[in-house]
Amino acid sequence: MTVAYTLYSMHGSGNCYKIRLVLHELGLPFRIIDVEKGSGITTSPDFLALNANAQVPLLVLPDGRPLAESGAMLLHLAEGTALIPADPYERALCWQWMFFEQYSHEPVIAVARNWLFLTPGGRERMAHRIDEWQTKGYRVLSVMEGRLEQSDFFSGPTFSVADIALYAYTHVAEEADYDLSAYPAIRAWLARVASRPRHVGIGWRG
Amino acid sequence: MTVAYTLYSMHGSGNCYKIRLVLHELGLPFRIIDVEKGSGITTSPDFLALNANAQVPLLVLPDGRPLAESGAMLLHLAEGTALIPADPYERALCWQWMFFEQYSHEPVIAVARNWLFLTPGGRERMAHRIDEWQTKGYRVLSVMEGRLEQSDFFSGPTFSVADIALYAYTHVAEEADYDLSAYPAIRAWLARVASRPRHVGIGWRG
Repeated sequence: MTVAYTLYSMHGSGNCYKIRLVLHELGLPFRIIDVEKGSGITTSPDFLALNANAQVPLLVLPDGRPLAESGAMLLHLAEGTALIPADPYERALCWQWMFFEQYSHEPVIAVARNWLFLTPGGRERMAHRIDEWQTKGYRVLSVMEGRLEQSDFFSGPTFSVADIALYAYTHVAEEADYDLSAYPAIRAWLARVASRPRHVGIGWRG
Repeated sequence: MTVAYTLYSMHGSGNCYKIRLVLHELGLPFRIIDVEKGSGITTSPDFLALNANAQVPLLVLPDGRPLAESGAMLLHLAEGTALIPADPYERALCWQWMFFEQYSHEPVIAVARNWLFLTPGGRERMAHRIDEWQTKGYRVLSVMEGRLEQSDFFSGPTFSVADIALYAYTHVAEEADYDLSAYPAIRAWLARVASRPRHVGIGWRG
């Protein structure tokens, strides 16, 4: 019997997709427990015992111990592999871009996508937020474009977990009303990431 | 001449305070460039060349290269020291709590403090947000309390950069209208952190 990771995952969630991407990339055995949106599972006592912060993704390690926060999972799973840069400065940039993603990118682009694409009636309900999402989201995309004009990947010349973190919601930014046609460096980087041999799409079940 | 770190820092900012705390804790030589709130410095061309995301803190390393994002600075400066847990699972929890801080804690408690304490007229202007900040902030504090009932520090039995990250805005949560009297484990942890020999207060100039 294979000792495997267990991932509590919500279909369509970019934060959950990041973990599936890194697990595939590294060829690690895992199983998924699907958490349906609105099912209330994340606030059940059993789940809260694993993650008191009531969020997916939630990763259960082969020894049974839980780990929350997609960024922490990426760093833990990739530790000691080529997905964490060996150079100390590139490693620091890898962390920088991962925190940038969670602080500046996800709360705008993923939240906009949630309401505008995933939630029935969300566009009407959140109409007053759309201008702010557009302004903030395009600013974030411009910061990314500037970096990718200098470097093939976010932490440096090689693919790292920072690219996985930023790919997840950027590649579906159009679902949040962002037009990427004026961002050629981002589009070329998206294609580089998607061309990796073990890449899977966000809609892949597994 | 001492090779030193340069920190672009805004007085009163918890994110900047984290970096001052870790620099003091590790006894690293540094100088501060004070960035006044509203001065426009972070959107000047010289600053944007260092951090296209237009934010402080911004750390310039001894070799002149810039690093953004407080979490990345904490991990980089503390790498190879006792402030990063040696055990892989505790290290993963250290990352987990740092991402928790930036994603769930700072956008509520630091933002509430900014408007309610630091911004003249902010309480009136943001009156419609206060209920939401109270609900979300107390939920975050409850998650922290639960962890600190099990463990002296966030990543495990020893002080780590996760504690620095979470201390910065939690110890001034009262400035954001949160009452910590019902959170004894948090209050005991705050006292443990503040009692460290090299600790400095948020108001310390340096």
